[in-house]
Amino acid sequence: MCYNNLVPRIVDHALRRRELAEALWRVVRRDGVHEVSVRTVAEEAGTSPGALRHYFASQDELLGFALRAVVDRAAARFAGLSATLTGAPLGVRVLEDLLPLDAERTEEVQVYLALVARSAADPALRRVRDEAEALVAAAVDEAVRLVVGDGPELPAASRSTYHLVDGLALHGATWPERYPPAHLREVLHAHLAVLARGAER
Amino acid sequence: MCYNNLVPRIVDHALRRRELAEALWRVVRRDGVHEVSVRTVAEEAGTSPGALRHYFASQDELLGFALRAVVDRAAARFAGLSATLTGAPLGVRVLEDLLPLDAERTEEVQVYLALVARSAADPALRRVRDEAEALVAAAVDEAVRLVVGDGPELPAASRSTYHLVDGLALHGATWPERYPPAHLREVLHAHLAVLARGAER
Repeated sequence: MCYNNLVPRIVDHALRRRELAEALWRVVRRDGVHEVSVRTVAEEAGTSPGALRHYFASQDELLGFALRAVVDRAAARFAGLSATLTGAPLGVRVLEDLLPLDAERTEEVQVYLALVARSAADPALRRVRDEAEALVAAAVDEAVRLVVGDGPELPAASRSTYHLVDGLALHGATWPERYPPAHLREVLHAHLAVLARGAER
Repeated sequence: MCYNNLVPRIVDHALRRRELAEALWRVVRRDGVHEVSVRTVAEEAGTSPGALRHYFASQDELLGFALRAVVDRAAARFAGLSATLTGAPLGVRVLEDLLPLDAERTEEVQVYLALVARSAADPALRRVRDEAEALVAAAVDEAVRLVVGDGPELPAASRSTYHLVDGLALHGATWPERYPPAHLREVLHAHLAVLARGAER
């Protein structure tokens, strides 16, 4: 049996999906996450809604795919950071990395919030959403351990930091004029200073 | 000129809007905020989508109306609390009141998050959303002042509490099994205990 014709088709499929995902991100970037739909992404990719539906059946599926890309991107950034930093400085950078401090991370938070708002009705979306939540919670846990050490304060410090960071992300991505990057960073650093003082006692 | 016919029409209008709003909240309560639409609310109210559109033209307008109701309800609860409590206990109760500790407040947070996710494209929704944000920020500000007093720590304490409370609200409303009311309350109280220790120094 000859598989020659099969292999290129699979490769093309993955390539096409990636091209469509890039079109999706251009729509997010230029028009906002609320503009993502089968129609707008098809238009951006220069294809028809029917052809796009072959890869992504609905707006929810597009957004689920986008959130998975966010998770992968964040995991790659964490790996990059831990190749160059260690200890408390690494912890602080991982926490900063979860905040909408630049355009890329603002888009990521917006995709995450859009998914959270839509996911109640859709088990597939809930799965992606829950994976993202678990990744963020675990990253915060590890980062706080690097900042405050492994003492008895760690569980409470990790919890409060996790909720604080997502509150900052929600506010910074939604009201960037009121809560600009400098504000987000300042609140995070003040919080970590309080935790560090607690750990020293 | 005779206005006799006009006044009852206005009254009926307000009454009808309130009835429709109650149907909207029944849909939120039973099926979740993602199920709110002109079609589902009309069905719940026993009317036609066309008749409902006379009062609420779109799903966004319905949700904007719902968020305004959330703001009014929260303001009424704050007024009720301040009639029976004062000082730090009032502050703590106001902060707890912003968390999804029961079904009513879970619905409110879900409406708020749904609006935040949709509001980017719609100036009218952004206005309601921004008013809600300002109300929450001001309530937190006043509550933290009651808890930690008017010292130099107040601005930082108020900021971190505001972001923490909304992070808790986001997590509690989205993952109630992982972050149940007891967890939300515990994190809030631990945070306030740290702030109070800071203010005492």
